[in-house]
Amino acid sequence: MKISLAQLNYHIGNFEGNLQKMLDAITEARSQQSDIICFGELATCGYPPRDFLEFDDFIRLAYESIDRLLAETDDIAIVLGSPTKNPEADGKNLHNSVLFLYQRKIQYMQHKTLLPTYDVFDEYRHFEPSKSWGVAEFKGKKIALTVCEDIWDVGTNDPLYTVVPCDRMMPFQPDFIINVSASPFNYDHATSRIRIVQANMQRYKIPMFYINHVGAQTELIFDGGSLVSSPDGHIYDEMPYFEECIRHYDLDEVLKGGIDRQQSKDKIPLIHDALIVGLKDYFAKLGLSKAILGLSGGIDSAITAVLAVRALGKENVRVLLMPSQYSSTHSVVDARTLAETLGIQYDIIPIKGIYEAFMAELKPLFQDQPFNVTEENIQARIRGTLNMALSNKFGHILLNTTNKSEMAVGYGTLYGDLCGGLSVLGDVYKTEIYKLAAYINKDSEVIPLNTINKPPSAELRPNQKDSDSLPEYDVLDPILYLYIEKRTDPQDIIAAGHDEVTVKRVLRLVNISEFKRHQTAPVLRISPKAFGVGRRMPIVGKYLS
Amino acid sequence: MKISLAQLNYHIGNFEGNLQKMLDAITEARSQQSDIICFGELATCGYPPRDFLEFDDFIRLAYESIDRLLAETDDIAIVLGSPTKNPEADGKNLHNSVLFLYQRKIQYMQHKTLLPTYDVFDEYRHFEPSKSWGVAEFKGKKIALTVCEDIWDVGTNDPLYTVVPCDRMMPFQPDFIINVSASPFNYDHATSRIRIVQANMQRYKIPMFYINHVGAQTELIFDGGSLVSSPDGHIYDEMPYFEECIRHYDLDEVLKGGIDRQQSKDKIPLIHDALIVGLKDYFAKLGLSKAILGLSGGIDSAITAVLAVRALGKENVRVLLMPSQYSSTHSVVDARTLAETLGIQYDIIPIKGIYEAFMAELKPLFQDQPFNVTEENIQARIRGTLNMALSNKFGHILLNTTNKSEMAVGYGTLYGDLCGGLSVLGDVYKTEIYKLAAYINKDSEVIPLNTINKPPSAELRPNQKDSDSLPEYDVLDPILYLYIEKRTDPQDIIAAGHDEVTVKRVLRLVNISEFKRHQTAPVLRISPKAFGVGRRMPIVGKYLS
Repeated sequence: MKISLAQLNYHIGNFEGNLQKMLDAITEARSQQSDIICFGELATCGYPPRDFLEFDDFIRLAYESIDRLLAETDDIAIVLGSPTKNPEADGKNLHNSVLFLYQRKIQYMQHKTLLPTYDVFDEYRHFEPSKSWGVAEFKGKKIALTVCEDIWDVGTNDPLYTVVPCDRMMPFQPDFIINVSASPFNYDHATSRIRIVQANMQRYKIPMFYINHVGAQTELIFDGGSLVSSPDGHIYDEMPYFEECIRHYDLDEVLKGGIDRQQSKDKIPLIHDALIVGLKDYFAKLGLSKAILGLSGGIDSAITAVLAVRALGKENVRVLLMPSQYSSTHSVVDARTLAETLGIQYDIIPIKGIYEAFMAELKPLFQDQPFNVTEENIQARIRGTLNMALSNKFGHILLNTTNKSEMAVGYGTLYGDLCGGLSVLGDVYKTEIYKLAAYINKDSEVIPLNTINKPPSAELRPNQKDSDSLPEYDVLDPILYLYIEKRTDPQDIIAAGHDEVTVKRVLRLVNISEFKRHQTAPVLRISPKAFGVGRRMPIVGKYLS
Repeated sequence: MKISLAQLNYHIGNFEGNLQKMLDAITEARSQQSDIICFGELATCGYPPRDFLEFDDFIRLAYESIDRLLAETDDIAIVLGSPTKNPEADGKNLHNSVLFLYQRKIQYMQHKTLLPTYDVFDEYRHFEPSKSWGVAEFKGKKIALTVCEDIWDVGTNDPLYTVVPCDRMMPFQPDFIINVSASPFNYDHATSRIRIVQANMQRYKIPMFYINHVGAQTELIFDGGSLVSSPDGHIYDEMPYFEECIRHYDLDEVLKGGIDRQQSKDKIPLIHDALIVGLKDYFAKLGLSKAILGLSGGIDSAITAVLAVRALGKENVRVLLMPSQYSSTHSVVDARTLAETLGIQYDIIPIKGIYEAFMAELKPLFQDQPFNVTEENIQARIRGTLNMALSNKFGHILLNTTNKSEMAVGYGTLYGDLCGGLSVLGDVYKTEIYKLAAYINKDSEVIPLNTINKPPSAELRPNQKDSDSLPEYDVLDPILYLYIEKRTDPQDIIAAGHDEVTVKRVLRLVNISEFKRHQTAPVLRISPKAFGVGRRMPIVGKYLS
């Protein structure tokens, strides 16, 4: 039996586009004499559809796609995910289902049992879990059909769920497992994915075909890396990361095992590639092509510019250099050097004149108040307004260049440097930013070394350095990581060897900055816990604040 | 038996503050010889605690509060909600529980069964549902303890859940039901709440004591309106809206029935009062007192100013009048009249000079491009920056004045008039705004009639009117209501008699404006479907766009 896996880049709500991609893949699989072709979770409508699922019309369009696919199934079976209607009156109105289509019929349908409702996932918001299990039968084989999370809670110490769906399917003696997934990237995820597939192999001793999505949907990036695993626990194949791909597998070969094909899982190159996909798809799926950003001479905007050029092409990236009276000469020089290296359009707009116009109007109200963060913020907001003016006039989307360390402690100006349609680096800590810069510069000096080596500064007052207001980043980032990624209690962070006063100060800064993060752009997610939809904190909460 | 209900204004994460309120209420109930005092859902930690629940330390603090309350239970029983640890390895680690405390012991604990995971609710994100049911026994009575949603799915046609918790408790023959709730306000909610309590009475024929929260937690407003209902379906008492209150009830009197005490549920006064509570608690719970806003002479900012004065006091509200070259004279006059009527500090800062400074710098880049939305946005962003400058310098929080109709169709400037820490009117349609103005002016002309009567305009270009870019609001709002509140399919909105071209245009505007709403302030929720946490739509989605 020959099984094709199609790892595709779906687009939420783009039923026609998603269908066309599937039809093309079917054509290819058919030319390879495949018996079955497998697509991803909710392949008809894309993932995550969020509250579009509350529209009957949206569900109707998903069924229309299924009808169109059924017409293709005379000689090949199709396995795909789609929302389906729950025929029972009780419970949520929808299921998240995997369907087995063959000979113009839905031969079998298995609803998802384990509905992830944590971090970025909201599946119980819309779907009723399955309460029955079985297998699809096809050409003498029995197939256990599962959807994403259904294989993730197996042999775990502290399981999130009370049912292990594959355990319920095993009495039907399936020959292999198909898992249709939409499992978003983080830099650890390819490793966890392989570990969980192998845990399933150890438990069930039958092959698994695991199909993931690829591409980005706003902040969520899907890396692909679809897997075929042999009953002996070897990874027979791991499909590429971050690109669409169709491959065809002979079940007998997969059964033999002994072959292990895996790709490098180095963190920094994965982050680099993920961010490029995130950028590329944000623009492509909104039907846009051009980006603008402010280039300060600092490392964050430099990396953002490089990634934008790699994602969109140098002809589609434009930068503004907006020195203030507090900017150092080298900042403009470094920014210009980078723009020239990248071959992108740049313009220089000094902000002093506009700043003085603001201060002239504000003087009667400010009277003798001393210079403080107010005047710093005015400069940042002038830059935000200039960036947006170009964006509005010429149709460039403004990219936000804030990093995760700054975003965490609120070191940034709302409506100023926090402007932008997409936060490219908002999930990358400053200490990781440096590694990313080194990776970008591995073959040649793309980012000026001076940009990398100088102490970080917002340059909004004379001789300002980030370390005037914040702990050094190599002190700050490990505390943030424990608090944000690991949800470690404050006393345990201190017990891990971090200075108590610093820990309390940092956690307080994180918590009182919730109002800022509430208003920032979607953040491309590359870690297991990014700011945004996956981290939901009260704004008026009084805890560690 | 005497039962006290304490309708309190909790604060998320403020364990000490919440505990102190409960201790004070216990003292009062004890002085009334009450046998039982009842508090709200998750009363220890406040509602909704969101991802604070992922910290062990946060849960430990909730248990500490329970310990402190246990010390009070020698002569009075306490019923309250709190997160508790799930002792089972399988499933989520927490329950959302109601506890019955008496004689220094947790006598009984019932976990919530129905975990709302829709709209603004995310309870399955953190909690494992109950799979067992029983009653508390106390002084010869049996008490069915329920948490909020547990009573909401009874006798419904298309129930969201597959279990009816009270049905499972009835075999234990309870004498009455206690429901601890945290059920957020919308203008229809008091009516639905009474309807659902009466549906329970009809089914179970025993009294119910229903205790709600009061006060606001960022965007969510709790209106109180706690209920005591008699077995005959009469509402024995409805506690006041929007204020803390403790009342004491004799069970024998409640059992008699025949008494019906309900409050007026007029929509506009409810919205008015809810917004004031929302404003008041946003400031109080963040430890802030002063607000600023831009007063344009239009109706939205006028209403926002009035509500702010009513919530915070006139000495705590400051406004800026920022006329541009396109502002009409009457706008400044109207704004000044209002400021003088309200007795609030106002300053006038013309933006022409700053605007010209921007345009001077941008001229070489814009060259001969015609005046368009870019120049309009620059004016809005100058105002945003001026408001924020005052906010930063003097500690006033900027209030956003955008209404729901504008927010829906993206008629507003990001980082301009969309600035602000809290959106006061973002859930109030323009057509409701007029009714709110009439209500505010019912006794005297608080808002200048000219502000109410003139055609809405952003005044960002000569002779501009909202109706140049948008349908008239009495055409627009009913379409928005069907789409947003009712999730009506486009074809059904058209079938309801709305113009097809207009419907398609409006729905497209709503969907392509998702990126703007993603970056706006939390919106005080007064409708059944507000923008923000309760409405989750993809940004890159391609559906009706």
